[in-house]
Amino acid sequence: MGRVVVDVMPKPEILDPQGKAVVGALPRLGFTQFTSVRQGKRFELEVEGPVTPEILAAAQQAAETLLSNPVIEDVVRVADAS
Amino acid sequence: MGRVVVDVMPKPEILDPQGKAVVGALPRLGFTQFTSVRQGKRFELEVEGPVTPEILAAAQQAAETLLSNPVIEDVVRVADAS
Repeated sequence: MGRVVVDVMPKPEILDPQGKAVVGALPRLGFTQFTSVRQGKRFELEVEGPVTPEILAAAQQAAETLLSNPVIEDVVRVADAS
Repeated sequence: MGRVVVDVMPKPEILDPQGKAVVGALPRLGFTQFTSVRQGKRFELEVEGPVTPEILAAAQQAAETLLSNPVIEDVVRVADAS
């Protein structure tokens, strides 16, 4: 059974309120090392057989059309993670 | 400037309604290759200097306490992505 991982992140110029909330909470918990946090999405798509180039191409297309909103998000990774 | 990536996924035994919605929508868009989808979160944490083992340890601790809910989620990756 194969697995494709798709990572989607908010575009750099888009405000990321979830990331801002995290970066505000970190110092209160003693984590003062981190200057900026962005929060995005990670999808794991499973296929029956092996992950072929055709599967990866379909995943890339699905990532750009269904898994991300291209106005505010970038698909940063589509990779075989079997 | 260094960057740490933290990936958090719902535990396998936990129902994932977002993933279910995606796996239901994929065939309607012509993507019939995918049998299962899980949706999780991806965080990018930035630090001023390089990503040291201490920074990675702090990120691991932050991932387990703030970035994930250990009852329903697993931290699947904490890695230097500078």
